[in-house]
Amino acid sequence: MPALEKYNRSLDYTYAPGIFPTLEALSKRPDAVRKVLLSRHLTDGEGFEKIVRLCTQHGIRTEQADKALERISGKDNCFASAVVRKEGQTLSAGKSHLVLHRPDDKGNLGTIFRSALGFGFVNIAIILPSADAFDPQVVRASMGAMFSLCLREYADFADYRREFPHHTLYPFMLNGSIPLDEAVQRPSLPCSLVMGNEGSGLPASFLSDGFPVRIPHSAAIDSLNLGVAASLGMYAFSSVIQAD
Amino acid sequence: MPALEKYNRSLDYTYAPGIFPTLEALSKRPDAVRKVLLSRHLTDGEGFEKIVRLCTQHGIRTEQADKALERISGKDNCFASAVVRKEGQTLSAGKSHLVLHRPDDKGNLGTIFRSALGFGFVNIAIILPSADAFDPQVVRASMGAMFSLCLREYADFADYRREFPHHTLYPFMLNGSIPLDEAVQRPSLPCSLVMGNEGSGLPASFLSDGFPVRIPHSAAIDSLNLGVAASLGMYAFSSVIQAD
Repeated sequence: MPALEKYNRSLDYTYAPGIFPTLEALSKRPDAVRKVLLSRHLTDGEGFEKIVRLCTQHGIRTEQADKALERISGKDNCFASAVVRKEGQTLSAGKSHLVLHRPDDKGNLGTIFRSALGFGFVNIAIILPSADAFDPQVVRASMGAMFSLCLREYADFADYRREFPHHTLYPFMLNGSIPLDEAVQRPSLPCSLVMGNEGSGLPASFLSDGFPVRIPHSAAIDSLNLGVAASLGMYAFSSVIQAD
Repeated sequence: MPALEKYNRSLDYTYAPGIFPTLEALSKRPDAVRKVLLSRHLTDGEGFEKIVRLCTQHGIRTEQADKALERISGKDNCFASAVVRKEGQTLSAGKSHLVLHRPDDKGNLGTIFRSALGFGFVNIAIILPSADAFDPQVVRASMGAMFSLCLREYADFADYRREFPHHTLYPFMLNGSIPLDEAVQRPSLPCSLVMGNEGSGLPASFLSDGFPVRIPHSAAIDSLNLGVAASLGMYAFSSVIQAD
């Protein structure tokens, strides 16, 4: 394996910076972990011991690499980072999905992945172009939740739709006709909750596709933060998709 | 007025970087706006015209100040920024409140302010120590929503409680006994939704104070992002506090 580079989208691996994300990678995707970088300042403690135990168990190499950790995490202190192979997964046709249409912000992606795992939306489609879902900043913001999710990128929405023509669409739109609490009353499953871009939302064409949902809020704000909107949507649907 | 400094907490003014936050400051708190900095690249467009119109209407000075804008906003491009006097406000005793107990993250604060305005929680107490609620990063992340809110900092929770002894407390805790959807069934108003720190949550003492609320999520995640949790709580309560 060549020297580790500062992360960029074209690499076939990413980093899970931080003890917690590293432990998530090691316990949920051990086969995808190539090695674990450790700081020379991390020599004991519960996190350290767990990392060493999991690495031993799965035959994964650890390496003292303070310089590389600094390069990966920028100014943040970072005591450990798994090096993880990136892999697109296959979404389950029988389960409900979250579809992120051209999301721009890495922090939002991480937050959404964490909420998605908490609310049972394990299958997530990302419609390109978008922020890089595998960027270490996303991994960190997700607290490693992404290692428990099935993520797949699609060049455009039509490609996603061709693969899953029978999912009922619930596009979230500022002018959606159905308030969120009504949408979850008699949902048609499996479903796809579709969330638009931070700035531009979803194209108007989604108004005539499925059941456009509105999250009621006062007119004092233009819109909610995307991470908040996606989390509210998944929370509301979480109890109904469990029978999914 | 002396030369404008890079923002720091001890200044008695802050910045509202960006066209949208500047317009919010000008329309919601014109009395607190000292002047508006403009980039020499901002010479026309709807935003520019609105800024000039509001400044003229309120007798507020504009100034071409590219260097200062760069200093204020770091690497982000920033075409305008209001310079706004910081002022603590008095919370309304008759209304329900959001109480943020020692929040650490500026992005979360901004997101929460935006959600709070959208869900009708206009009165917000911040228990110190905390991230600086007036930092320009917070102003920007709030999309200027904070200029429509009543914010007040308290040295500790006891100070807040002394001022509002009759508010029913709903502390949000991972081991809260009441699921969120039950808590909003027959709420006792006015109420205070209390949210803990990102890392440490609320002290255990809150378990015996009021009605500890739990947001149900799977065991696959440790906790939700604070901005998400606060937004879910306010959304759930938004319909009941309207009679407030």
